[in-house]
Amino acid sequence: MSSGSRVLFCKSLLSSIPSLPAAYRFNSLASSSSASASRVFKMSADSSSTSSPSDTSASSAIDFLSLCHRLKTTKRAGWVKRGIQDPESIGDHMYRMGLMALISSDMPGVNRDKCIKMAIVHDIAEAIVGDITPSDGVPKEEKSRREQEALDHMCKLLGGGPRAKEIHELWREYEEASSEEAKVVKDFDKVEMILQALEYETDQGRNLEEFFQSTAGKFQTDVGKAWAAEIASRRKTKE
Amino acid sequence: MSSGSRVLFCKSLLSSIPSLPAAYRFNSLASSSSASASRVFKMSADSSSTSSPSDTSASSAIDFLSLCHRLKTTKRAGWVKRGIQDPESIGDHMYRMGLMALISSDMPGVNRDKCIKMAIVHDIAEAIVGDITPSDGVPKEEKSRREQEALDHMCKLLGGGPRAKEIHELWREYEEASSEEAKVVKDFDKVEMILQALEYETDQGRNLEEFFQSTAGKFQTDVGKAWAAEIASRRKTKE
Repeated sequence: MSSGSRVLFCKSLLSSIPSLPAAYRFNSLASSSSASASRVFKMSADSSSTSSPSDTSASSAIDFLSLCHRLKTTKRAGWVKRGIQDPESIGDHMYRMGLMALISSDMPGVNRDKCIKMAIVHDIAEAIVGDITPSDGVPKEEKSRREQEALDHMCKLLGGGPRAKEIHELWREYEEASSEEAKVVKDFDKVEMILQALEYETDQGRNLEEFFQSTAGKFQTDVGKAWAAEIASRRKTKE
Repeated sequence: MSSGSRVLFCKSLLSSIPSLPAAYRFNSLASSSSASASRVFKMSADSSSTSSPSDTSASSAIDFLSLCHRLKTTKRAGWVKRGIQDPESIGDHMYRMGLMALISSDMPGVNRDKCIKMAIVHDIAEAIVGDITPSDGVPKEEKSRREQEALDHMCKLLGGGPRAKEIHELWREYEEASSEEAKVVKDFDKVEMILQALEYETDQGRNLEEFFQSTAGKFQTDVGKAWAAEIASRRKTKE
């Protein structure tokens, strides 16, 4: 959510992961359910030490998925900071981005299945570092460094095999906007945000103009431009 | 969430969709943000009537995605009915199921990309019919009929093209458990639920034994059995 923003995190979860770099212990907020993730992770560490190779694989999967629980419980900070009631989770946002990729038309040089995977992966490091916003005062490079480190940790947790490599590659491509799929998914990130902004405006009687201004003129793909224009048109009709 | 349960819905949204069959107007609850979806849909109806063919495609996409907003705002009824605080949305649930498919190992005869798509589609009809639970007293056949009708409507909203057909086929295969992918995703549905149940038990000090009992012995795939066993083992360690 580069043009929007987000928050939170997970002090007790982080302190429960022995191998997690100290850099993660930045100025953050502990969310209400961090104790849960922490304990589930500890249980995993206990059980994996006595399990067979196939159990270890299941153990890695459940470790990874338990950590990803944070993506359900962490609310998008752009909405939290503006007092939106019952704001969406990071998972909710990535979910609808996945649907966007699913329903998008064929595009030359774009692998749609890869777009769907990139959509559900692109914010995954926020399960550890939280939703860092411009107002948090963290430079872009430092934000990227923390997310890279978190992603490395999550891939390690997953066992480092082909799935970890795929997730890492999807995330890196998105961060660097280094593929056609990344450009499309970056546009979906903004489209999803302004559609959600319009829905909050309509439902909660708010003015969220800044989200529209921050994305205006920044769409790079035909699909992103067309969908953003459609949303802007509906917003205008509403006025 | 066949073995668990869910709720809600969306009277004013339904009444705002002229072509929606009367059967949807069943005994349901209006959620707090239904007015939003209703108004966004109405705006769409206005704007599409004057748009060019390419705009219509964007209009269909935004109509569909606006309806899918309900998947973010509707909480899973199994948790709501048991008084879980800040329960996950239907979108959150499908999101982590998408991750499950993403990280799963290769399986003979199983297309993993298709599993990911099926995971994010399988509960999509709940955007209209809500999360119907066994305690709602709706027979299984009637629940399936309502969801089928809702799915048909959503596919029509999407314009009926190849994407609509794909979504319909993914949903039908899941409902009928008629493919290897459907069997895997049905297991992920249960695994995701019991992992979430364990997380709520740990975090909110609740006993959610019924969710574990309702799924015990019902996993059909190796991955489902292994992951469910891992979760059960962690739950036992916790006691």
